[in-house]
Amino acid sequence: MNLILLSGGSGKRLWPLSNDIRSKQFIKLFKNQDDYESMVQRVYRQIKKADADAVVTIATSRSQVSAIHNQLGDSVGISVEPCRRDTFPAIALATAYLHDVQGVSADESVVVCPVDPYVNDDYFECLKALCEQADKGEANLVLMGIQPTYPSEKYGYIIPKTDERVSYVSTFKEKPDVKTAESYIAEGALWNGGVFAYKIGYVLSKAHELIDFKDYYDLFAKYDTLTKISFDYAVVEKESRIQVLRFAGEWKDIGTWNTLTEAMDEQSIGDVMMNDSCENVHVINELGVPVLAMGLKDVVISASSDGILVSDKESSSYIKPFVDKIDRQIMFAEKSWGSFRVISVEEESLVINVTLNKGHFMNYHSHQHRDEVWVVVSGSGRTLIDGVYGSINVGDVVKMKAGCKHTVFADTQLKLVEVQLGKDITVHDKTKHAIKE
Amino acid sequence: MNLILLSGGSGKRLWPLSNDIRSKQFIKLFKNQDDYESMVQRVYRQIKKADADAVVTIATSRSQVSAIHNQLGDSVGISVEPCRRDTFPAIALATAYLHDVQGVSADESVVVCPVDPYVNDDYFECLKALCEQADKGEANLVLMGIQPTYPSEKYGYIIPKTDERVSYVSTFKEKPDVKTAESYIAEGALWNGGVFAYKIGYVLSKAHELIDFKDYYDLFAKYDTLTKISFDYAVVEKESRIQVLRFAGEWKDIGTWNTLTEAMDEQSIGDVMMNDSCENVHVINELGVPVLAMGLKDVVISASSDGILVSDKESSSYIKPFVDKIDRQIMFAEKSWGSFRVISVEEESLVINVTLNKGHFMNYHSHQHRDEVWVVVSGSGRTLIDGVYGSINVGDVVKMKAGCKHTVFADTQLKLVEVQLGKDITVHDKTKHAIKE
Repeated sequence: MNLILLSGGSGKRLWPLSNDIRSKQFIKLFKNQDDYESMVQRVYRQIKKADADAVVTIATSRSQVSAIHNQLGDSVGISVEPCRRDTFPAIALATAYLHDVQGVSADESVVVCPVDPYVNDDYFECLKALCEQADKGEANLVLMGIQPTYPSEKYGYIIPKTDERVSYVSTFKEKPDVKTAESYIAEGALWNGGVFAYKIGYVLSKAHELIDFKDYYDLFAKYDTLTKISFDYAVVEKESRIQVLRFAGEWKDIGTWNTLTEAMDEQSIGDVMMNDSCENVHVINELGVPVLAMGLKDVVISASSDGILVSDKESSSYIKPFVDKIDRQIMFAEKSWGSFRVISVEEESLVINVTLNKGHFMNYHSHQHRDEVWVVVSGSGRTLIDGVYGSINVGDVVKMKAGCKHTVFADTQLKLVEVQLGKDITVHDKTKHAIKE
Repeated sequence: MNLILLSGGSGKRLWPLSNDIRSKQFIKLFKNQDDYESMVQRVYRQIKKADADAVVTIATSRSQVSAIHNQLGDSVGISVEPCRRDTFPAIALATAYLHDVQGVSADESVVVCPVDPYVNDDYFECLKALCEQADKGEANLVLMGIQPTYPSEKYGYIIPKTDERVSYVSTFKEKPDVKTAESYIAEGALWNGGVFAYKIGYVLSKAHELIDFKDYYDLFAKYDTLTKISFDYAVVEKESRIQVLRFAGEWKDIGTWNTLTEAMDEQSIGDVMMNDSCENVHVINELGVPVLAMGLKDVVISASSDGILVSDKESSSYIKPFVDKIDRQIMFAEKSWGSFRVISVEEESLVINVTLNKGHFMNYHSHQHRDEVWVVVSGSGRTLIDGVYGSINVGDVVKMKAGCKHTVFADTQLKLVEVQLGKDITVHDKTKHAIKE
């Protein structure tokens, strides 16, 4: 099975756990044995269980590449959108990537689906069925139609021609109000969850119709010149040969604290105490200090390095305008080489816990406006400072003046305390350099 | 006016703002012009306003001395109890301190009162009146009788002989149930708020009757051998010549989050956002990240380096058993030289923000089991490291191996990031050393 997972943008609706660089799909909230996994990790694990040979390509922006490598390893395919150009260019680019980089034949089918559905294994069996249905060539597109459980206003609806498991599509309906949704469901309508399969050649030919390009590399190079246009508008609405395949299993779209806490296996994650009079309370605590919840009802509490949310569950769907007002430094991020957490912000200094994973290193870089000091608190590694190699161990201190080029390679997992010093400390003050051997 | 302020022990009822070394009276929660002051600071300021020449002695344990000097400066008198021995030994020691150290005559009167009443200026006028009444010598003890505002079960009651402003006391009553309290109040009873005045010579002679000691220094030296006994039991219950002076002004005993938030001038302190649907919500946020409260009712939120409390206000009186379970490192403390805040705890390292006030220095000390690194992030100062003097400025790094003797003197306000490294990091691993000139 070939899969394109669409990994969307920054989600402020799950603040303070999501932020400009940590989208909701990367938050580790779901119990898997003794550990927690993110939505991305959960879905990827479920895919590999359904089909160990699945060729997975994640279509995403540059800002998520580090987090994806950190959470899924280096073997997953990533089709990086150089900038945001809506779903048609993104799907065209990822399809070209599968064909030209991964070497998948134009005759093979591929399934496109969001990276973050909260679903069980039967969902992935259905993805395989979608792929097989597309292979038959009875239609140019095969959509998943999700059996509605209530008259939702949040989804578009698909009206099938028949009530068979696989049917041609009669028509599509935009997100309706509740009354209209009820009438659609009475007619046998299905939710459109944005999951569909097609033969690679089909979307490539559609892409060549609309865009002048040679191959993946060429499309990638001119990506910023492309018109913003949705896949629905460019392809689906103009296509007459579309089938829908019914899916009646559990399917949750986790986009708010309210829906997310419904999917949690436990009342709390992290260092949390609750008294007996708490009712329908969920606490997610990423901080190193305890949270004590007493006498609360229908409340979600979420604490991270970015802030603390305490909200009635109903109200928690409306946090976005408040969170938009918060203009803060990113306090926690996962990078391809490990992660960092800002632990103290002062007027002219910043203290950061930096963790490098074993065998990884950061870019060789320098800063114009700040000095930095590293104190090694755990592990060992090798430094490159202004062209000079050195080795570091617990207790060692490295001082880097503004302009000094530096990087560190982790021989074991390596933990540093980084102190940044200067008047204009910003993430943008960073120049990358080539390492001369 | 001579005043002994009794400064009590650690208050876990206001966790996470109070902890084993920061008692509730030191938390800065009360608005005074553009700044916030603690209960201790508020009371001290009110005393000095009522009587600029008041001789104030704070009777307290060793653990509070640093915080008192930090908040009130070095000129306030402190009678340090070497260990806890109940109120009679504490009052005897403080009285001897006034006589033998501060040079107050045995004929003069002194008022004893708790350090943390939430009151207005009329309370301090009443303290003066108590002192003047004691000066008259009509009674050996003059108590403040607070006009009850409701039949409280939390206080003892004083039954006066007459309904005059000053009256001899008929009898004392233990904390009653509500019904009994109602009947006391109908009889004209007053609350006993633990405030009283006496002539210094009176309590000294009582002390000499019960304890064999020469003077303050002798009493201090043998303090740990004294029997634990309350002032009520040792003196009040055996004394027949007691007067009570009525006080009808505002008087609040702030001991729980519930009563504390009632006394707050604002809904929130710190970086806090609240939506319009929040009702009777108070947020105190000492952390450097925002708190967002949405759709809550009758809730108190308090966030500090020690933890986060989110509680229904009613339930907030019952936090103690939960907080008792938390066995954690102190994360924030005010010292005589400044303050420290733990910003990161890892298995074998700790990162601390240290602030030294201008002109202050810490003890010359060493640690047996940990190395330390200082990174100067603001200000300048002078170090003494294993007998060698040096000077430090922003960006400088000082490395101290286990066993290394060290201290630093702040020429300006001085901020350090301290990294502690080792397997057994504890506050008890500290040896003080004399500085040889």
